[in-house]
Amino acid sequence: MKKFEEKTTQSDLIYKGRIITLQVDEVLLPNGKTSNREIVKHPGAVAVIALTKDKKIVLVEQYRKALERSLVEIPAGKIEPGEPPEVTALRELEEETGYTASKLQYVQSFATSPGFADEIIHLYFAENIEKLTVKADLDEDEFVELMHVSMEEMEDLITNKQVYDAKTAFAFLWLKDYLK
Amino acid sequence: MKKFEEKTTQSDLIYKGRIITLQVDEVLLPNGKTSNREIVKHPGAVAVIALTKDKKIVLVEQYRKALERSLVEIPAGKIEPGEPPEVTALRELEEETGYTASKLQYVQSFATSPGFADEIIHLYFAENIEKLTVKADLDEDEFVELMHVSMEEMEDLITNKQVYDAKTAFAFLWLKDYLK
Repeated sequence: MKKFEEKTTQSDLIYKGRIITLQVDEVLLPNGKTSNREIVKHPGAVAVIALTKDKKIVLVEQYRKALERSLVEIPAGKIEPGEPPEVTALRELEEETGYTASKLQYVQSFATSPGFADEIIHLYFAENIEKLTVKADLDEDEFVELMHVSMEEMEDLITNKQVYDAKTAFAFLWLKDYLK
Repeated sequence: MKKFEEKTTQSDLIYKGRIITLQVDEVLLPNGKTSNREIVKHPGAVAVIALTKDKKIVLVEQYRKALERSLVEIPAGKIEPGEPPEVTALRELEEETGYTASKLQYVQSFATSPGFADEIIHLYFAENIEKLTVKADLDEDEFVELMHVSMEEMEDLITNKQVYDAKTAFAFLWLKDYLK
């Protein structure tokens, strides 16, 4: 799958941060001309759509500085170096919600912003999640509030844009179809 | 919706590119400590899930340098300064596919990567699209191949990961539900 491949003729590292790296690649286009591509490198992430025994979806509300607002999202987080995505998924579920799952079902993976970033999210599904007796710790700069919502309440959260991100929107449509 | 707000105490512009801007904000956390947030600013984008009269979805295959592979996606593109998203949507449909629509139905908007970017995608739906007699021009560094696929063929493209991005994955689930 290399159709219309753009070969790199030069790559400049602009910024290496704590989470993302920015590079600008000079590329040779299929027509022989050159162009620049601004590329954000990201370690990849996981997300979990999780249902309690009474069929409530667990969500977390957190402040998203990039958008200067708080969002209600399914639990998610970035993959640590060398960590298998399924391990990240269980870890993030435990850290962000205080629930654990005996089994994670793989749903789908997708690139979030293929025009400028290499971030891939791997989505998992967990049913019959159970409260941990000892809550796992969040990262020290993470502040989240746990919510439990029904399918109907989730529709309302989408309508009023409290749920407003691609992974959560996708996961909810997937779940609606799965539960039919 | 400012719960757990992180107030900016300093903002450093790292890079201002052709499409994205990178800044690093120092923020005051709810617990009184400080942290840094790496933030990619993007002008926002639109995407269109479009059906021909014989119920084929129109898709475009293009090379995505960030992922070093080509992807099959619904037509999409970034919003030009001051351009209403619906205008962008019709323009991108015409430029990328050579089809036009008499009406666009607004579906939903979502942030693609709220952890590090402010990009919002606005999704539209177009039915009974018609070939333009004169094809609109692509951007000069854009190379795309048009595809027409049935709902069943779309499932296959997702299974074999040729379709592998969040907006297209979401749009297809939405369309399946809409056509029921």
